[in-house]
Amino acid sequence: MTEHRVYNFYPGPATLPTEVMEQAQKEFVNYQGLGMGIMECSHRGKEFDQVLQTAEQNIRELMGISNDYAVLFLQGGASLQFSMVPMNLNPDQDTALYADTGSWAEKAIKEAKLLGPTKTVFSGKGNNYTSIDDCESWDMATENGEDPAYLYVCSNNTIFGTQFHRFPEFPKIPLVADMSSDIMSRVIDINRFGMVFAGAQKNLGPAGVTVVIIRKDLAMKVGDNVPTMLKYTTHIDKGSCFNTPPTFSIYMVGLVLEWIKRQGGLAQVEAANAHKAAMLYSAIDNSDLYRGTVEESCRSQMNVTFRLPNEDMEAEFIKQATENGMVGLKGHRSVGGIRASIYNAMPVDGVKALVEFMGEFERKS
Amino acid sequence: MTEHRVYNFYPGPATLPTEVMEQAQKEFVNYQGLGMGIMECSHRGKEFDQVLQTAEQNIRELMGISNDYAVLFLQGGASLQFSMVPMNLNPDQDTALYADTGSWAEKAIKEAKLLGPTKTVFSGKGNNYTSIDDCESWDMATENGEDPAYLYVCSNNTIFGTQFHRFPEFPKIPLVADMSSDIMSRVIDINRFGMVFAGAQKNLGPAGVTVVIIRKDLAMKVGDNVPTMLKYTTHIDKGSCFNTPPTFSIYMVGLVLEWIKRQGGLAQVEAANAHKAAMLYSAIDNSDLYRGTVEESCRSQMNVTFRLPNEDMEAEFIKQATENGMVGLKGHRSVGGIRASIYNAMPVDGVKALVEFMGEFERKS
Repeated sequence: MTEHRVYNFYPGPATLPTEVMEQAQKEFVNYQGLGMGIMECSHRGKEFDQVLQTAEQNIRELMGISNDYAVLFLQGGASLQFSMVPMNLNPDQDTALYADTGSWAEKAIKEAKLLGPTKTVFSGKGNNYTSIDDCESWDMATENGEDPAYLYVCSNNTIFGTQFHRFPEFPKIPLVADMSSDIMSRVIDINRFGMVFAGAQKNLGPAGVTVVIIRKDLAMKVGDNVPTMLKYTTHIDKGSCFNTPPTFSIYMVGLVLEWIKRQGGLAQVEAANAHKAAMLYSAIDNSDLYRGTVEESCRSQMNVTFRLPNEDMEAEFIKQATENGMVGLKGHRSVGGIRASIYNAMPVDGVKALVEFMGEFERKS
Repeated sequence: MTEHRVYNFYPGPATLPTEVMEQAQKEFVNYQGLGMGIMECSHRGKEFDQVLQTAEQNIRELMGISNDYAVLFLQGGASLQFSMVPMNLNPDQDTALYADTGSWAEKAIKEAKLLGPTKTVFSGKGNNYTSIDDCESWDMATENGEDPAYLYVCSNNTIFGTQFHRFPEFPKIPLVADMSSDIMSRVIDINRFGMVFAGAQKNLGPAGVTVVIIRKDLAMKVGDNVPTMLKYTTHIDKGSCFNTPPTFSIYMVGLVLEWIKRQGGLAQVEAANAHKAAMLYSAIDNSDLYRGTVEESCRSQMNVTFRLPNEDMEAEFIKQATENGMVGLKGHRSVGGIRASIYNAMPVDGVKALVEFMGEFERKS
């Protein structure tokens, strides 16, 4: 039943694998012959329970997550995590360390400041977030000499197109990472993190569910006065079913996880992503028209940002790309330019089509 | 393409109108010829913006909501509202008044107590929540004589099967209502409320989105120290798009709203619901086998709860009902018995089938 599909380069909500979309469509009204959709099933029933357990298990398997960690499906997006992280992980009002590598890290810092002492150990703001300094140069000392509560990073900066290719190594400090735009796009060693979280709407599924992976001992630090819904321990104790979870979004994440397994796992996905990104960056570097916006060493494999000589040409580029079945290429409203978001589900043919179009556009201009 | 459908009496996530499910299925992979699903569209793009604006407009139209109120689409379910209500509406630590009419109200009280002074003006706990006293008997005085911050009620008690048929009238006190299980099931005068909220997963759509209707002047009371995501003003200022909203859930709510309009609006829906509930209660009252669990004057039109002489017969009733294509009839695990949830989308034929089955089951037993 394959339908006409465009190449969707939106930064999120983003393209999902066509075969995942078609499977969900097929069983939308009548899931596994039950006579109702999975969306209509009770979250306490065995059908949804199976969906939830399998999704958690597949995340554990794909990312190599031990039982020291909880895997949760929450609501509110990464933006709510910006507050939940300090509420839960910094009950004693120690200093929380932040690396400011772009808008999303900045927003996280703003929320943390409402709740306790923070220190920014690195800021890329001065150079418009076009690079990330090596963590060896970061100033990690706290004002009163106390152990910091945690170190917070945003692993991939969707808006600016930068990415950590090597994570900070401070073994004594719990590392917290917002991986909203690159979770499951590459192999990571989860044991180096205290906590990882990600809104699903880029690499994992639709908007409306946030995956949280947290070391259980860190979650236990939370104080008694934190609202029940905002405590990780609540959701750990109830297996993400303290209240009604976003069942259909979790089901979609489950289908995407099965798809990732069919690709061969994260090593294969990482290789495919590296190949797609290399094609695009090479097209940029070998052109006289396009200009990458960030330092080569920290270019993102997920969000490829570039400029044309002027805004009129950028508008024309976007217009013609859309006419050629490639949508969502406009850069974030705060920075302009072009951004091609090439998450896991973007097929290599989509990137090939974009590279070809870029060549043609340059020849004609 | 009508598929086999069961009658789904689950309390939520619950049945949705078959025609809504079929429409969503039809355009799931290719929304309006765009070559992608609405789930894959950017929340900043014109396609989703249209979905969001239309959904808000239809809620305003169906419920007669003026511009004095904001209509928001949030995440976290009613359970997160239990904390957001006191955080936002009680910045000065006045006394917040609560009517305890069941488990959900109890949970709301527990969260409010973490954040400020509360007073329970009525509790049905002593009689197992089988009735709701008239509000004339409630003790509304605050300890220090200050004006209460608000009065909080849960309009329909999903677990116990009771419902407010007349709302408390204290014109000087903002009335806050959790309408998760009966929003849009009947006509209400929104101007008598300071705020109404509802998880969508019963009468409005799938799990994962919470509709909040709030008088803007009340929302403005919030203090500076409340986390950004937990302030209603944040979402009012950004039209529910401060961060990525649960786009597909909102789209589904939009389809349900169009369906409600096709039914003729809330007066027609209310009449249909009254008819369905009357059929079921009449079957209970005219039987020697079934026994209603709550006082007649506060019986819910949404969740019809009843018992059989013993638990074995209840288990057999549920088993045979399931075999006859009627699922989700088991009472909440905390109270047992039978519960038929007959929200807007439950067709009258579903209730007829249940009544017939009840008669047959009684004759055979």
